[in-house]
Amino acid sequence: MKQNALKLLDEILEQRKTASPDESYTAKLFSDGQDSILKKVGEEATETVIASKSGDKAEIIHEIADLWFHTMVLLKFHDLDSDDILKELESRFGLSGLEEKANRKK
Amino acid sequence: MKQNALKLLDEILEQRKTASPDESYTAKLFSDGQDSILKKVGEEATETVIASKSGDKAEIIHEIADLWFHTMVLLKFHDLDSDDILKELESRFGLSGLEEKANRKK
Amino acid sequence: MKQNALKLLDEILEQRKTASPDESYTAKLFSDGQDSILKKVGEEATETVIASKSGDKAEIIHEIADLWFHTMVLLKFHDLDSDDILKELESRFGLSGLEEKANRKK
Amino acid sequence: MKQNALKLLDEILEQRKTASPDESYTAKLFSDGQDSILKKVGEEATETVIASKSGDKAEIIHEIADLWFHTMVLLKFHDLDSDDILKELESRFGLSGLEEKANRKK
Repeated sequence: MKQNALKLLDEILEQRKTASPDESYTAKLFSDGQDSILKKVGEEATETVIASKSGDKAEIIHEIADLWFHTMVLLKFHDLDSDDILKELESRFGLSGLEEKANRKK
Repeated sequence: MKQNALKLLDEILEQRKTASPDESYTAKLFSDGQDSILKKVGEEATETVIASKSGDKAEIIHEIADLWFHTMVLLKFHDLDSDDILKELESRFGLSGLEEKANRKK
Repeated sequence: MKQNALKLLDEILEQRKTASPDESYTAKLFSDGQDSILKKVGEEATETVIASKSGDKAEIIHEIADLWFHTMVLLKFHDLDSDDILKELESRFGLSGLEEKANRKK
Repeated sequence: MKQNALKLLDEILEQRKTASPDESYTAKLFSDGQDSILKKVGEEATETVIASKSGDKAEIIHEIADLWFHTMVLLKFHDLDSDDILKELESRFGLSGLEEKANRKK
């Protein structure tokens, strides 16, 4: 089921994009605009580097999840979503082909 | 099918982690070690900010895909993978619950 | 006179390094430790990129001043100061030589 | 004499801004344009974080010097220079006042 987490999160972000800024952290972020979202992307990337150098696995997961989340907010800000990233990774690594082969093996 | 792209990429990264550095960019990155991977995470985050401010959607997708890819290399470096991030996002946003509800509606 | 600004700031930082965290933002930053200082370095670098892309000169000056300030806090955290950076830039660009020549011209 | 290093570096950058890109790394950077300079600012900030967490003082100095250098290139790109940053730090920390007092003590 996990594979749908990103899709569900995209849907939540779609709703929060037009919600009142009082309703949630994410609605406030959309309302504050692009620069606020970008500052968070930069912050979370730095925190990922710090967590990795500290070698704390729980922190690494926490910070990379934060980073992915804020890049998904940025994607939605530009009317894009996680699907655009997955398609790009698929085409870059030939993952659709690999997937086809994986399915044929079953 | 797209939902499996991250899982397939995790498998490719698992193989490249132990491959000879001559074989691919990714094998070289693992071989160069943590700091090289972290530099790429920082670079791609900055390039995401630049692409977003330039307003070029193809570039935004390209840079965020690069950023996700390099965070996945970092996860694998620490014996983690995309599944750890999806579980974290699920628990943070109650996505398993939402998914359950979504499934029940069908 | 301006040329001494960095030296004076180094002295202020030296005092605040051992001051009570209640006394100032900078004393609090030293007390919070390395990771807090590094997060600020990352944040200010991102804000410099954003300000530059926005093309707002007052903002660019504000953010680069913030970035230099927080790198000076980081230097002091490691018992270094702005002098170490100026010496490095001097030796890298042959500035002591240039300075000598500039002085001889007078 | 060190206090003039930034001023001399500003002058070098002024010359390289209009020099042929073949002549030096810095002339090439100006010719490549704003985004190339910003990528370097982001890279050097990340490398500063990595060097600090590694606790290697020579590396910390090296990376912060790189970071200051590239922010000075960025300033010059926007027709600003290190003087604008020193004035900002002076006014923020009341350094001109402190300097006056320091001079009066002599």
